[in-house]
Amino acid sequence: MIRHTALAALLLATAAPAFAQADMRNLTPMQQEAMDDNLAYAITEGLVTEVGHRMAGTEDEARARAWAEKKLTELGFANVRIETYRMPTWVRGKETAEVLSPAPQDMHIAALGTSGSTGDAGIEGEIAYFPSLSRLMAAPAGSLTGKIAFVTHDMRATQDGSGYGFAGPVRWRGPNFAARAGASAIVIRSVGTDHHRNPHTGGTTFDEGVKHIPAGAISNPDADTLERLVALGRPVRMKLVLTPKDLGMRESGNVIAEVPGADPGLPPIVIACHLDSWDLSPSAIDDAAGCGIITAAAKRVMAMGQPRRTIRLLWAGAEEVGGFGGEAYGKKYGDQPHALAMESDFGADRVWKVDFNLADEALKEEMTLALAPLGIERGDASAHGGTDVDAIIAAAKPAVIDLAQDGTRYFDLHHTPDDTLDKVDPAQIAQNVAAWTTVLQIAANHDGAIVAGEESHAEGQ
Amino acid sequence: MIRHTALAALLLATAAPAFAQADMRNLTPMQQEAMDDNLAYAITEGLVTEVGHRMAGTEDEARARAWAEKKLTELGFANVRIETYRMPTWVRGKETAEVLSPAPQDMHIAALGTSGSTGDAGIEGEIAYFPSLSRLMAAPAGSLTGKIAFVTHDMRATQDGSGYGFAGPVRWRGPNFAARAGASAIVIRSVGTDHHRNPHTGGTTFDEGVKHIPAGAISNPDADTLERLVALGRPVRMKLVLTPKDLGMRESGNVIAEVPGADPGLPPIVIACHLDSWDLSPSAIDDAAGCGIITAAAKRVMAMGQPRRTIRLLWAGAEEVGGFGGEAYGKKYGDQPHALAMESDFGADRVWKVDFNLADEALKEEMTLALAPLGIERGDASAHGGTDVDAIIAAAKPAVIDLAQDGTRYFDLHHTPDDTLDKVDPAQIAQNVAAWTTVLQIAANHDGAIVAGEESHAEGQ
Repeated sequence: MIRHTALAALLLATAAPAFAQADMRNLTPMQQEAMDDNLAYAITEGLVTEVGHRMAGTEDEARARAWAEKKLTELGFANVRIETYRMPTWVRGKETAEVLSPAPQDMHIAALGTSGSTGDAGIEGEIAYFPSLSRLMAAPAGSLTGKIAFVTHDMRATQDGSGYGFAGPVRWRGPNFAARAGASAIVIRSVGTDHHRNPHTGGTTFDEGVKHIPAGAISNPDADTLERLVALGRPVRMKLVLTPKDLGMRESGNVIAEVPGADPGLPPIVIACHLDSWDLSPSAIDDAAGCGIITAAAKRVMAMGQPRRTIRLLWAGAEEVGGFGGEAYGKKYGDQPHALAMESDFGADRVWKVDFNLADEALKEEMTLALAPLGIERGDASAHGGTDVDAIIAAAKPAVIDLAQDGTRYFDLHHTPDDTLDKVDPAQIAQNVAAWTTVLQIAANHDGAIVAGEESHAEGQ
Repeated sequence: MIRHTALAALLLATAAPAFAQADMRNLTPMQQEAMDDNLAYAITEGLVTEVGHRMAGTEDEARARAWAEKKLTELGFANVRIETYRMPTWVRGKETAEVLSPAPQDMHIAALGTSGSTGDAGIEGEIAYFPSLSRLMAAPAGSLTGKIAFVTHDMRATQDGSGYGFAGPVRWRGPNFAARAGASAIVIRSVGTDHHRNPHTGGTTFDEGVKHIPAGAISNPDADTLERLVALGRPVRMKLVLTPKDLGMRESGNVIAEVPGADPGLPPIVIACHLDSWDLSPSAIDDAAGCGIITAAAKRVMAMGQPRRTIRLLWAGAEEVGGFGGEAYGKKYGDQPHALAMESDFGADRVWKVDFNLADEALKEEMTLALAPLGIERGDASAHGGTDVDAIIAAAKPAVIDLAQDGTRYFDLHHTPDDTLDKVDPAQIAQNVAAWTTVLQIAANHDGAIVAGEESHAEGQ
């Protein structure tokens, strides 16, 4: 299925989205200064170099919190603090996959979060092939006994990341349905748009009472090979060794910092990223870059003089494994009013669109005009935030603004070993900072109230 | 060193070289038919799917020989045969690398061919950093005792592959010089132009009497990280586990097939690729594609009627680990005259240049004109063949023609896990077949003698 489009996909997906200084006309001095500021990049670089991966619940995430607390303090933010909570912790073990027949070969695999273990001896089984999740969902109970389910899909790179909504369920729910049909394990085609030998890990969810079978993602080139082997028409047998472990409840935590507002009576603005990461890479774009972006922008607003409203930075913990940090924040602060919630968690490429959930049309117009010099257009969808602010949005009903990043190459890298610093383009991450600074400077100093709009989807109308 | 050029490098190096049907004007019917022929792609697909990697001296290479003999026979070639020889066999074991301090993190590593073993327990040591091979070569004897040498470089993608000549010595000779200075192991920046977590393996050579220390290549993003850690100014400690093994002398072999010429008195044309591969990938471009190209072209010439001269296909064994297949061919056939030697072993991207070592100026002109519709220009260097034909060229002094392939993205993939079928562009591999068919059809039917030119380098004059 990949063959005929391989070249086109390489050309489309692995290169960075087109981005030229020339797209940005008539920058304000504030925006130009943000474009020349390398703080977001420097934070990203520091986190990936001096900490590395930051798997939730582990010592690595704890080291990251200590690093973050020190960094945010050094940068001059107020009320820097770590707020801990406990959450279920899962860690990767050994992982190998090999085709035993009809043509022996190794494959690159990564266990999915909450996957069960095969034990050190591994398991062998015949592949039961499903070209889509819905075909797997239709498999009768018991029909996969002793088999290893293999589910594929055909995810494409898109600017708005909508391909993830299409292909994501293969990972999120495939293992549950394979287990329900009796499979001894499941292998999925990585939910990703690249053509490298990098498996994409990520979370999966089993229903209550459903066995956590061993579940892994193989890289896209390996999935291509497995599809070709299936197409030969002979039985395909594989051996899997996946030995992840549940460590039970462990400590994780959020790191919080503030730019105190001149009027403490006004509800704060909360801006979020996540500090934790999957464990296969230092996770530069997911989400060290997001923390760099929101922090550099808040620092720039702080440097321009005390804003009216408090800006609160939330470097959330344990996002990847279930949004525990955002949940903890929502639980702790949900009874306090919040003016606005925003999140940066879609890489480091440029902002191309702004969406609002904001009542005040004049304020939206002001922000839209202010963002235009950065090459950003107003979208026609409502804003939704993201995992780290879901709970506070549900509890406190703040306004929401989404500065949508270009996701064309995001799913080439997402949750792979390949999420490294060289994937961050200094010019594009600086454009993010300029966009965030622009919005925060307006919102934090806005005279009137900031109120959520009536949530609506104009898209498609 | 990588930071400021990361985006430019991504844009340049990971996408396929520009190639458009429109570059090809006025194709002959023979060339158009070759462009429409998918045999080269099908051979590549078959080999990587039904065999996988083909490490020299292993059962995998033996399976590949059996596959090749069957395929070449089915395709109608004559005198299909396997010619075995014995060669020293080295196989990969476990391999892990981790930074212990100042910031613990895992790195992706691959042992280099003939690397020594750390033993299962691994070794730990402080990094001794060298920004170039010449700096390492200057290290006094004993100065690296107990240290792990780390050597980097700054290889760039080039169309003609010349970046390999610049950076290659870091791999070919770095381990030898590190061992001479007393290092307990060596880690090199992968000799490659990509930005993925794929280490590039490959051969290295220790001088007689120099200890085979453990020697591995880390991926380029990992080398970036290690350089940044070194730049922090604190000691960097690593742990390496590399457990490759020497298996002693094992059997390898060449697969040979022929298109018999109408005039058996004329010296044959030998065209070569290599059947063996490194073990990290199914090795589609290195060199399943080369075997596909030469075979599809020979088959097309055969289909056009019996040529005057015999065309002999050499699918050489054990090229990667020291050119043992080409050497065995040269030894066996070196006392027989050969008209012409050619090799395809530089990927599957388009031919952009033709170079000759050929006396007959009119014949060169005829070939140059015939290749022009395929978008191929005449170069100004002499032709040299390659590893699989080195020995026969030295022994029998045939003419040589190089159909130079575009190597812009070759070293993104070379010797990595990423050398998979999706990297082969069906249109570009077909253009190779059209170019080879064009040259072979002329050469095999040429009325006059085919004689090597006086070897010369016009380049740079």
